[in-house]
Amino acid sequence: MARELDFFFFYGSTYTFLSVLRISKLAKAAEVKLRWRPFNVRQIMIEMDNRPFASKPIKSSYMWRDIERRAALHSIPFKGSPKFPADPDLMANKVGIVAAEQGWCPEYSVASYESWFLKNQPLGEINSLIEILALLGKNVGAVLEEATSEKTAKIYDAETEVAKELGIFGSPTFASDTEIFWGDDRLEEAIAWSTAS
Amino acid sequence: MARELDFFFFYGSTYTFLSVLRISKLAKAAEVKLRWRPFNVRQIMIEMDNRPFASKPIKSSYMWRDIERRAALHSIPFKGSPKFPADPDLMANKVGIVAAEQGWCPEYSVASYESWFLKNQPLGEINSLIEILALLGKNVGAVLEEATSEKTAKIYDAETEVAKELGIFGSPTFASDTEIFWGDDRLEEAIAWSTAS
Repeated sequence: MARELDFFFFYGSTYTFLSVLRISKLAKAAEVKLRWRPFNVRQIMIEMDNRPFASKPIKSSYMWRDIERRAALHSIPFKGSPKFPADPDLMANKVGIVAAEQGWCPEYSVASYESWFLKNQPLGEINSLIEILALLGKNVGAVLEEATSEKTAKIYDAETEVAKELGIFGSPTFASDTEIFWGDDRLEEAIAWSTAS
Repeated sequence: MARELDFFFFYGSTYTFLSVLRISKLAKAAEVKLRWRPFNVRQIMIEMDNRPFASKPIKSSYMWRDIERRAALHSIPFKGSPKFPADPDLMANKVGIVAAEQGWCPEYSVASYESWFLKNQPLGEINSLIEILALLGKNVGAVLEEATSEKTAKIYDAETEVAKELGIFGSPTFASDTEIFWGDDRLEEAIAWSTAS
């Protein structure tokens, strides 16, 4: 009777767009409580030398076509490949940590992915962040100060450690206790697992 | 009105186990005609420097757990990770080409994956091949001679070229005309696509 699901994700992961836009509705319908947990998958992937797309243009173009088809399947708008690099300084992720601490991570994540994927704004850039935070009615200065604090960096690192200990190596990953499900295409399976266990 | 689906796969791919055991029933129910097309994904992956599991034990153990769960989901038996290396000399694949040419690729593929995954026989070794071919009532000597022929090598290479031209980089991949779907978890989507287009 877990009925709780940890949603580990990274702002900058492409497939995570689909999950961020899908997960709240699915979890609500299944009466599963979500924990939104931003973590640094980039660091984990570099440590593992896991580079699924770098210098693999054939895989990259397949990925975009796949995301386009999956978005259509789930009635999610899609406007092609967004701007890269994404969140080079991890600012979108660190604001995500603040949002998770303060309880507004779902709406911040949706707004971030909509900004990046649908409005073609560069993810993590200061102007994008200001626009998103203003849209959410937040005190922009206070949030950005908190995001760049030592405390937030420590939480982000600790969350990344938790993910690593669970054996997580990609974003999105859904964890029901210690059972992990990698990929947006495992979301329904993860929710079903969390309601059955 | 395609209603045809090309099933590109490699004997030795792990997730392909699920597709080989699932695809005939799904295609039949959807009235989709399948073409079973063994190809050399190993060569393509080496050329792309695409090594998703080599020296990534965390990803490998996740993969086995994922296959175990997916097998259970589809009511397919699973007995843990099979013997490796798989088909080091490509003999299982080349017999697959002969089987495809002669019209018995579906039953040969199922028997091969059952032998490898469920009976724990090494894939592609001569004794495994003899047992599988005998089980299917084939003339073992004649099939093996054909499999090692120049003609079969040429067909296998040509099929690999076709796959590469379609942008295929993994096994299994399902192709509806030039639309490609990678991974066992895209099988239903590929079948739906081929019936809609």
